[in-house]
Amino acid sequence: MYRNVTCGELRLADVGKTVTLAGWVQRIRKMGGLTFIDLRDRYGITQLALNGDKLSLADGLGREFVLQVTGQVIERQSKNAQLPTGEIEIEVSEINVLNPAVTPPFTIEDETDGGDDLRMKYRYLDLRRTCVRKNLELRHKMAFEVRRYLDEQGFLEVETPVLVNSTPEGARDFVVPSRMNPGTFYALPQSPQILKQLLMVSGFDRYFQIVKCFRDEDLRADRQPEFTQIDCEMSFVEQEDILNMFEGMSRHLFKAVLGIDIPKLPRMTWADAMKYYGSDKPDTRFGMRFVELQDLFHEVENQKPEAERFSVFANANYIGGICAKGCAVYTRKQLDQLTEYVRRPQIGAKGMVYARVEQDGTVKSSVDKFYTQDVLQRVAKAMEAEAGDLILILSGDDAMKTRKQLSELRLEMGRQLGLRDPKKFSCLWVVDFPMYEWSDEEQRLMAMHHPFTSPKPEDIPLLDTDPAAVRANAYDMVINGVEVGGGSIRIHDAKLQEKVFEILGFTPEQAQAKFGFLMNAFKYGAPPHGGLAYGLDRFVSLFAGLDSIRDCIAFPKNNQGKDVMLGAPGVIDQVQLDELNIVLK
Amino acid sequence: MYRNVTCGELRLADVGKTVTLAGWVQRIRKMGGLTFIDLRDRYGITQLALNGDKLSLADGLGREFVLQVTGQVIERQSKNAQLPTGEIEIEVSEINVLNPAVTPPFTIEDETDGGDDLRMKYRYLDLRRTCVRKNLELRHKMAFEVRRYLDEQGFLEVETPVLVNSTPEGARDFVVPSRMNPGTFYALPQSPQILKQLLMVSGFDRYFQIVKCFRDEDLRADRQPEFTQIDCEMSFVEQEDILNMFEGMSRHLFKAVLGIDIPKLPRMTWADAMKYYGSDKPDTRFGMRFVELQDLFHEVENQKPEAERFSVFANANYIGGICAKGCAVYTRKQLDQLTEYVRRPQIGAKGMVYARVEQDGTVKSSVDKFYTQDVLQRVAKAMEAEAGDLILILSGDDAMKTRKQLSELRLEMGRQLGLRDPKKFSCLWVVDFPMYEWSDEEQRLMAMHHPFTSPKPEDIPLLDTDPAAVRANAYDMVINGVEVGGGSIRIHDAKLQEKVFEILGFTPEQAQAKFGFLMNAFKYGAPPHGGLAYGLDRFVSLFAGLDSIRDCIAFPKNNQGKDVMLGAPGVIDQVQLDELNIVLK
Repeated sequence: MYRNVTCGELRLADVGKTVTLAGWVQRIRKMGGLTFIDLRDRYGITQLALNGDKLSLADGLGREFVLQVTGQVIERQSKNAQLPTGEIEIEVSEINVLNPAVTPPFTIEDETDGGDDLRMKYRYLDLRRTCVRKNLELRHKMAFEVRRYLDEQGFLEVETPVLVNSTPEGARDFVVPSRMNPGTFYALPQSPQILKQLLMVSGFDRYFQIVKCFRDEDLRADRQPEFTQIDCEMSFVEQEDILNMFEGMSRHLFKAVLGIDIPKLPRMTWADAMKYYGSDKPDTRFGMRFVELQDLFHEVENQKPEAERFSVFANANYIGGICAKGCAVYTRKQLDQLTEYVRRPQIGAKGMVYARVEQDGTVKSSVDKFYTQDVLQRVAKAMEAEAGDLILILSGDDAMKTRKQLSELRLEMGRQLGLRDPKKFSCLWVVDFPMYEWSDEEQRLMAMHHPFTSPKPEDIPLLDTDPAAVRANAYDMVINGVEVGGGSIRIHDAKLQEKVFEILGFTPEQAQAKFGFLMNAFKYGAPPHGGLAYGLDRFVSLFAGLDSIRDCIAFPKNNQGKDVMLGAPGVIDQVQLDELNIVLK
Repeated sequence: MYRNVTCGELRLADVGKTVTLAGWVQRIRKMGGLTFIDLRDRYGITQLALNGDKLSLADGLGREFVLQVTGQVIERQSKNAQLPTGEIEIEVSEINVLNPAVTPPFTIEDETDGGDDLRMKYRYLDLRRTCVRKNLELRHKMAFEVRRYLDEQGFLEVETPVLVNSTPEGARDFVVPSRMNPGTFYALPQSPQILKQLLMVSGFDRYFQIVKCFRDEDLRADRQPEFTQIDCEMSFVEQEDILNMFEGMSRHLFKAVLGIDIPKLPRMTWADAMKYYGSDKPDTRFGMRFVELQDLFHEVENQKPEAERFSVFANANYIGGICAKGCAVYTRKQLDQLTEYVRRPQIGAKGMVYARVEQDGTVKSSVDKFYTQDVLQRVAKAMEAEAGDLILILSGDDAMKTRKQLSELRLEMGRQLGLRDPKKFSCLWVVDFPMYEWSDEEQRLMAMHHPFTSPKPEDIPLLDTDPAAVRANAYDMVINGVEVGGGSIRIHDAKLQEKVFEILGFTPEQAQAKFGFLMNAFKYGAPPHGGLAYGLDRFVSLFAGLDSIRDCIAFPKNNQGKDVMLGAPGVIDQVQLDELNIVLK
C-alpha cells in the first residue's frame, strides 16, 4: 500500500503518529513561511503543513497532483469544525509525487465552474467531486441493502440474458446483429418480464434481479436508453403479500440508508388519486386536495337566466379547485403568472379562476360579476378556505384532462410554498388501477399495465359487460410524487387470459403469435404469481434529493443517447459491417 | 398467500398441525385404498396421503399439476430417511387444482430422460429439476457473499454502461446500431477495463462490479457470448495488497458457501508453473510434477556412437517425464491408448516413451534397445520412481509445446487415477507472468495480459535490452487447474507506458489513436492502481463441481450462440431495419 491511513480518518487522538497518506491536491495555500496543502481522497480531506526546509517540497506542485505524503500528525492551531479531520494537520517530512496533473478544465469542487457538457465530456473528473461521488456511494448502499433484504426473505437473484429476442409489444428495442446467424438479430431486454414469469413456472418461487434494461426511445429529459431495475417476482401470492413484502423492503431501505422510520404506507385507489390529486402518482408531502365544484356551480347556473350565466362553468363537465393556504396575498402579477403557467402548451388549460378570502371573510374573485357573495361563500366553504387563503379553479369538458392540469397547478403551488422539501418523504401505494385504458390513436382498449395483469376477482364479471370499468390487481409505489415501482398479479388461468386478449382486440391467432411462447410454458403448470419492478436510478435520485437521475449514474448518456466521454456511439470498420452482413443505408 | 408452509419445512414436531401447502405434483402412487402424492416446491418435497372418501381428490391429477393442498400433518408409517420431510406426511382434507399441466417432454428428475437440446428448448422445465436449480441457488449465494465481503472492505459497486464504444484491441465486439445517430454503433463491453481505470482516476479508490461482458467469438465448447465477471480495481496498491485482498475474498467464499477452510494460497511463478506442470493454470490437486531429462539423455547419447543413438531423444531440445504411481500394471493396450491420446491433433505429440519399474526394481521400457539398464535406473532415480510405478516421457524441439503436451498427458493420468476429485479444492496464485509473448501470426511481441500491465520494477531495465524476458506484475488465481481470476498492476507512469507501447510496435500516433482516451485521462492525475477480474460462471461451476458452465447459467446459449427457448437471435421487421438505417446484405 502507498498509504497507511486515508485522508478521512485522522483525529486529535492520532496526534504524534507518523503516517503516510496518498491522494490528490485539492488546494495549495502559501502564507509566507508556511504552505498548506489540502490532500483529498474518497474518504476525506487532510491538511498538510510545510514549513522551514520542507517548504520547497511544495515547489512545482499543482491542483490534482497525486501525492504520497509522510509526516507527523499534529494538532491544528486554527481548527476547522466543518471538516472531520479539522482538528489535526500533518507536519510533512516527505512528499513523493506519484503523478503530476495538468490543470483540469473545471474546478473539482461541489460548486464547480464546469457546465453540463464539459462535466460530461470529462466525467472522470466530474466524478472526483464529492457531491457526485456521494450519489454513487448512496447507489451502492441502496443496491446492497436491497439485496440484503431480499436475500433474507428467501429471494434468489437470477441473472437473465442481455441478448434476447425482440418483443412483440412495448417500446422500441435496441438490436444486435448476429454474425454467426446472418440476417438475424438479438434484442436487448426492455425488462426481464417474460423471463421472470418463466422462472415462476420453473418453481423459483421468489426471484429478484438488479438488472440493466434498454429502451430505444426518443429521450425526453431525464430518460436514459439504459436504466436499472430492481425486478422482483413471487409465486403463490396475492396482492396483499406483495404489498407487504415490498413495503417492508422500502422501510428497510429508509431505515438502513437514511436512518428514517417511515410510517405504514397508506393505500389510495387509482380513482381517488385521480379525483383528489389528478395524478396516479400524487405528491402527498402536502395536502391541497382537489374539491369538485361542478355540482355547486351547475346548480347556481341553472337558477340564473341564460344571459347571465358564466358559460365557462355552465358548460364544463368538470370544475375543480384547490385551496392555497395563506396565499390571498398573491399579487395580480403572481396570479397572472399562474394563469400563464397553466396555459402553457404542455399543460393546456384555457384559463384559471381565482378567489381570495379576505381578512374580513369576504371573497373576492376573478368572476365576481357572475356570482353573488353568497355563491362565493358557498365555494369558500366547500373548499374549506379561511381568511387569507387563495382558491384556484380550473374547469373543462374532459374531467381527466382538467384534473391533470389542476395537478400541475397544485404541484407548482406546492413548489412555490416550499411544501415539496426533498428531505421529507411521503410514501404510498396506489392500487386498483384500471385494467384497460382507451387509446384514441389505436381506437381500442389497451392494457394499462401489461396484458398479463390479472383483473380483480370481483370485477371479472364486468369483463363481459363493461370492460373499461374493470380494475386490475396492479399497484404502484409512489414517493413524493414519483412512481418508484409498480407491478401486478399476473393471470395464471389460460381461459381468463384468452378473454383478456380478446378484449384487447387480439384474435386467438394474433394472441398466439404474440404471446404464444409464454402461454405455452404456462400449459406445463403455472403457479399463481405476481411481482413488481422498481426503477433504481429514480429511487436513488429520490433518496439523494435530486431532481435528475443523471447524477446517480456513473456514466450517463445525454439527450441524444450519446456518451460524449467515450464517444459512443461511433463508426465501425467496414470489416465489422461485412462480418455482420449488414450495409449502411 | 396460497400456503402457510412450504414443501420443505415440516418435521415430526409439526404433527397434528393443519397446514396448507402449494406446489407441483412430482409423483402419484396408487396403492389399493391409499394414494400418495409427492408435492414439490423450491424448498423440498412433502408426501400427501389420501384415503377413504378423499381418494377421489386425486382423480384426474397428473404430473406437474399445480395444487393447493390442506390437511393435517401426521407421522409416517414407513419413514424416508433420504428426505428431510421423510418422517411426516399430510392427511389431505382438500385439494384445489391451481393449474393443470400437460405432460412435460422429459421427466423432472435429477436423472432425466431429456437430451441436451430438448432440455434447452424447455429450459423453464429443466430449471424445475432440483440439481439444476441448486446451481443457481449456489450462484446467488456466491454473488451475495462476494458483495458482502467487498462491501465490508470498502469497495463500491459502480454500474458501468452496457452501451459503450467499440474497443481497439481484443476480441470481436457485439455492436448495436444507433437509430438516433444514423450510421453509428454502440458496442457491448468485453469488460469494463477502461471504465474501471477511469474510476480510479476519479478517486473511487475501491471499485467492484458483478457485470455482464460480451464477446462475439466463435464459440468453443463451454464459452458463452455473454458471461459474468466479478470485476475489481483498487488504488494506491501494490501487487501484494491485491493478492491479499482477493485471497481473503476466496477464503470467505469457500468458508461461507461450502464451509471449507482453505489454506493460505501458495504462489508459483509462471516459469515454475510451465516447468513443472506445463501449464499456466496447473491442477495442483495432485503432484506428478514434470522432471526434465534432456541433460541426462543428452549426456548418454553423446557418449554413444552416432549409429546407436535414439535420434528422437538425441535431437530433442526438451525431454520431460512424469511418474504415475502404481501404474506399472498398465497393459500394453492402455499404454497404446495413452500414446494415441497424446498424438491426437488437439495435443499433437509425435509419440510417447514409457518405462515400468518392475517389482524387482528393474526398469522395462519401450526404448530398451537404445538404453542400458543402468541408464534406465538413472532415469527412474531422477523421476523418483519406485517399484510399481510407470514413467511416461515426451520429447520435442520446442520446450513450451512439449510441456503443453505433457501437461495434457498429466491431466489425463490424473483423471484415470481419480486424482481430480471435484469435491477437493487446490488453490494457488500464479505470478510473474511474462509481459510479452511472441506472436508468430503478427511477427511481433504482444501484450500477454493487456497493454496497461505494469512490468516488475526490477525488470524495467530489461525493457531496453531483452523485452521478451521482462516479467509483469500480473497474477492469476488458479483453482483445480482452472483460471478463475486474473489481473495486474497497471502502469500509471506516462513515460513507462510509452516505452511499453513502443515495444508492442505502436508508433506514438498509433498509441494515441488506440489508447489516447485513457492516456489523456491519466494526464489529470492517475493514482497507482491495479485489479483483477473473476469469471463468475466458471467460479460457480467449480464450486458446484461441474465441468460445464452452462448449468450455472439460467438461460444459456448453445454453441451457435442461440437461445433455442426464446428463439433468439431472430429476424426483425423491415420497419426496424429502416429506422436503424441498415440493410441486410
